[in-house]
Amino acid sequence: MSQSSHIKDRFLSHRLITNDLIGKIKTEHFDYKPTPTSMSAHELVVHMLTSFYHLASAAAKQRPKTLHDKDDDKNLPLLAQRYTDESVKLIESLSEERLDEFVDLSDSMGINVPARTLIDMAIDHEINHKGNLFVYVREMGHEKLPMFVKK
Amino acid sequence: MSQSSHIKDRFLSHRLITNDLIGKIKTEHFDYKPTPTSMSAHELVVHMLTSFYHLASAAAKQRPKTLHDKDDDKNLPLLAQRYTDESVKLIESLSEERLDEFVDLSDSMGINVPARTLIDMAIDHEINHKGNLFVYVREMGHEKLPMFVKK
Repeated sequence: MSQSSHIKDRFLSHRLITNDLIGKIKTEHFDYKPTPTSMSAHELVVHMLTSFYHLASAAAKQRPKTLHDKDDDKNLPLLAQRYTDESVKLIESLSEERLDEFVDLSDSMGINVPARTLIDMAIDHEINHKGNLFVYVREMGHEKLPMFVKK
Repeated sequence: MSQSSHIKDRFLSHRLITNDLIGKIKTEHFDYKPTPTSMSAHELVVHMLTSFYHLASAAAKQRPKTLHDKDDDKNLPLLAQRYTDESVKLIESLSEERLDEFVDLSDSMGINVPARTLIDMAIDHEINHKGNLFVYVREMGHEKLPMFVKK
């Protein structure tokens, strides 16, 4: 199995759970926030989807496309599917040479790391916020939740 | 840098944040749970500390020691330090040959994977529950929280 296939599997083992949780968020809960200083559920989901996509774009040295506008903004499952599909395409484009190349994000994030490290960081970021989202979704009244990673 | 040093750094980049959050949990919040079906803050912290330690013990093919009893159970920062120190020792013991050896946890977890994969899974588990813990600690009234990973 190629390295990019391994990375895709690892990404999807978490993202498919994220999308499962997103599917449980009803429109009336988009503005739900556990505390006044928390991100709302809608903000958290959009942050997760766009962050991974932008970091994967940087790893692939591609300019990110605009994947949603105001009309789509209230359809989180649609956005989840679209960002997931585009993120997978970016991962699939990563050759072994590209994975070893450094990506300089000194200006925006203060890091200059190989593309493979950047993708690892993006997946860790996804897992962290999925951990937040589990608590949000349980607080919305859902008691039957999936495992944190898809086998 | 050896592979075990890399793994130790990656583990600590998350665990030190976990311990930072643990330090913010006051005794009167040990039983705090966001919903009736959630783990309490105390249960969540003990689950994180013991899960990583047990998985690292399995990776190192060592029998886990008993690291706390009833008297220690209410001193979470002490437990955090003790479990972190012992987990680091286990990671440091992992030779490159050992990291490639399979660990058969078919009976308990339905997996049979190389030690390095088991440690990766243990770190993902830590990140997920740290993501939960961030929401708990914010709900306890803490607004200034660290980044999710220590650089």
